[in-house]
Amino acid sequence: MSCPGRGPIEERVLEAIRPTEIQLRLLSRAYDLIRRALERSLAAHGLDFVIEPEGSFAKGTLLRDRWEMDVFVLFKGVDERWVLSESLGPLREALQGFPVISKFSEHPYLTVSLMGMEIDVVPAIYAERPSTGLGVGRTPFHTRYVRSKLDNCMADEVRLLKSFLKGIGAYGAETHVRGFSGYMAELLTIAYGSFRAAVKAMSEWTRRVFVDPERIGNREELERRYPESPLIVVDPVDPMRNAAAAVSEDKLALAVLASKLYLHRPSLSFFHAFADRVELRQRPPVIVIVCNGKYYEEPPEGVWGRLSRASRMLAKELEAWGFTPLKASYFTDEGSLAAIGVSLASDRLEGLEVLRGPDAWTDVENIRAFIGKRLEEGGLWIGDRLYGFRGRRLTEAGSVARSWLAAHSKLLGDTCRAVSISGGDLSGIPGPLREWLWKEFYTVPSWLAGL
Amino acid sequence: MSCPGRGPIEERVLEAIRPTEIQLRLLSRAYDLIRRALERSLAAHGLDFVIEPEGSFAKGTLLRDRWEMDVFVLFKGVDERWVLSESLGPLREALQGFPVISKFSEHPYLTVSLMGMEIDVVPAIYAERPSTGLGVGRTPFHTRYVRSKLDNCMADEVRLLKSFLKGIGAYGAETHVRGFSGYMAELLTIAYGSFRAAVKAMSEWTRRVFVDPERIGNREELERRYPESPLIVVDPVDPMRNAAAAVSEDKLALAVLASKLYLHRPSLSFFHAFADRVELRQRPPVIVIVCNGKYYEEPPEGVWGRLSRASRMLAKELEAWGFTPLKASYFTDEGSLAAIGVSLASDRLEGLEVLRGPDAWTDVENIRAFIGKRLEEGGLWIGDRLYGFRGRRLTEAGSVARSWLAAHSKLLGDTCRAVSISGGDLSGIPGPLREWLWKEFYTVPSWLAGL
Repeated sequence: MSCPGRGPIEERVLEAIRPTEIQLRLLSRAYDLIRRALERSLAAHGLDFVIEPEGSFAKGTLLRDRWEMDVFVLFKGVDERWVLSESLGPLREALQGFPVISKFSEHPYLTVSLMGMEIDVVPAIYAERPSTGLGVGRTPFHTRYVRSKLDNCMADEVRLLKSFLKGIGAYGAETHVRGFSGYMAELLTIAYGSFRAAVKAMSEWTRRVFVDPERIGNREELERRYPESPLIVVDPVDPMRNAAAAVSEDKLALAVLASKLYLHRPSLSFFHAFADRVELRQRPPVIVIVCNGKYYEEPPEGVWGRLSRASRMLAKELEAWGFTPLKASYFTDEGSLAAIGVSLASDRLEGLEVLRGPDAWTDVENIRAFIGKRLEEGGLWIGDRLYGFRGRRLTEAGSVARSWLAAHSKLLGDTCRAVSISGGDLSGIPGPLREWLWKEFYTVPSWLAGL
Repeated sequence: MSCPGRGPIEERVLEAIRPTEIQLRLLSRAYDLIRRALERSLAAHGLDFVIEPEGSFAKGTLLRDRWEMDVFVLFKGVDERWVLSESLGPLREALQGFPVISKFSEHPYLTVSLMGMEIDVVPAIYAERPSTGLGVGRTPFHTRYVRSKLDNCMADEVRLLKSFLKGIGAYGAETHVRGFSGYMAELLTIAYGSFRAAVKAMSEWTRRVFVDPERIGNREELERRYPESPLIVVDPVDPMRNAAAAVSEDKLALAVLASKLYLHRPSLSFFHAFADRVELRQRPPVIVIVCNGKYYEEPPEGVWGRLSRASRMLAKELEAWGFTPLKASYFTDEGSLAAIGVSLASDRLEGLEVLRGPDAWTDVENIRAFIGKRLEEGGLWIGDRLYGFRGRRLTEAGSVARSWLAAHSKLLGDTCRAVSISGGDLSGIPGPLREWLWKEFYTVPSWLAGL
């Protein structure tokens, strides 16, 4: 198959990311099995329903490394309450021959894990038009819309954009990522016409972007509804909805940066199947807090969110003590291991610390208190206000981290410890965390380095 | 003599700062000698003139440690040009029996140095009302105004305020001080009624103060004319003039701060005759640049101004390299020695330095250049923009000072050297500079410490 406008890089990427014939056949086979099991059992309950495949498998935009599929069971003549609280019973019964885990995000669903494949079975209400209720009600309409727009060439263009967004670290609408969803990759490809055209457009994006694939949106009204969104993409199945509401300004900027660099010099390293890391010349000291806990008992979103918050708090604490944080990061295997890390310009501070005092306009008691404390501890001078200095109380970043940890044990769990890493020596760190530390603090992605 | 409203502290201060009977008699004697010499000779030239004593001697507000006097020769029937270029000849001729130096500030004048006394002989035009020309033309009117307002008690109140302003370091209208002149001390005492009342009022001053001793000023108009002045004091002899135009916000704030502390606990240490220093517990490292030059050949104002500028530049340079300057100071003996100094939280830096790079909205060439440089030198990461880090190039404050000095030798003279002082060891410093360093960097005034 040859499609217009692609360069050799993109053709080479597609060879690596397009699902294989066997993969698609296996997934289709699994779909048939599940569908038949559902149909048989649910019909026996006297329920009225339609079964549909959804998501990237159904839309033909699946990537080779994803062995996954969504199967929606659209019930007729039921209400939302029934779906939320009653629907899982009949579904679980129908799938009792399969290995099933039940999950819950915005709505209840089941996951069938079959020979490495993950098949999400999602109950929803059958609707003639996009529901204004649960987000899941829009999914069938998204699937139909995208299918109607994509031929094989365009499906591959979507795959390129997904792989690009994944490769640069901007893929995923989860709260701890706040990047671009798969549907977003599809809409942008449709709106701009191809992967290359989308990258070109993204490279010219500003801090506030409006994209309307079907030209049906009211920009003013949407900007009023989504004042915090740097990117508004009008949902073709619901013109009052910003399909890009999850995208943060940081991830928008990342996409713009990477697009500029890709256009400047296209390379395999921008795509997820080829993503690699380049080692930095300097290894900054890193303070790591390593924790053990039962993280598998919580929703992953919650754990990631807590870690993200904790990493920012630790960086702020270190900064308040006079250190210079470079980068903060966090990681969990979603099992029993979690960690946060902050790299620093230096993990030791020498000398005195400066204290800003009151100015002349403050009341005399404040002024006296400051003068008294500073003379007791170190020194004092008058500039545009009073200033003082004293010998630093905590000069090791590790000590700051330990005392911060003592005050915030609840945030991460009780079995945490602080580790100071100097010169990139990761020997004190549990194995699964080493790759995370190496990637986050001692390397950059090769797409950023390959200029 | 007993005057109302004074405490024992103020009485004790006055005993130390009031000129002695002998001092006043000697000054009067000197005045008579000079006056007679001037009268004889100038009359012989056929000039028409009046001789008047001016300044604090004439106003009765002299301090004991000042052996000085101003003698004005007010010529009638001459113009400004004549005063500026012709008047010094006849004056010098009249005073040829005395040791005379000629000086020039805004106008030409002669200084007679007689047995430790300094008598400035100033030519000016005789005027019926305050001249709008040279500032010196207003002096006789200032003298007359202040004399008309002060009895002996009030003159002592002025002495207290002068001594207070001197003691806290806010006295002097010179450009490198930007504080309160003697005339200002007189006007504030007159406006508020006593030293204590003036200090009380000052302790309640805000960032923008308006004082009008004779209630003749137009506040709106004066604020329009002097938009930068934090303090406006209407000149009683010229209502359109702000007599406090020299006062900076820093010196205003200093006066407010000291007034608050004095009211809280009055003490001798606030007054110049009793000013002392208290040693700090910590001795921060200090970078000093010591220079030799012919500073006596320049107007002192110019030298002080240059040193002030240089000290601020050096502090900024050190800050730009990552150091934390505490306090900057400067000193000259107005002869052949000058110096600037900056104290620091630490005179050594460890670790990496952080470099802020372009954001995603910048053009790709800037982005590429930054990425390339940072990967070459150290490290890189993406936050809200690109950031980089690298090993510091200058880690010793002394090295920064030396390279700054090499680039700015013109500012201070060619024979300068940078000295790093650690732990208060002043052995590498020429004697006359040691007291300055000790005072500025290792001590605070005892009025600030005595709480």
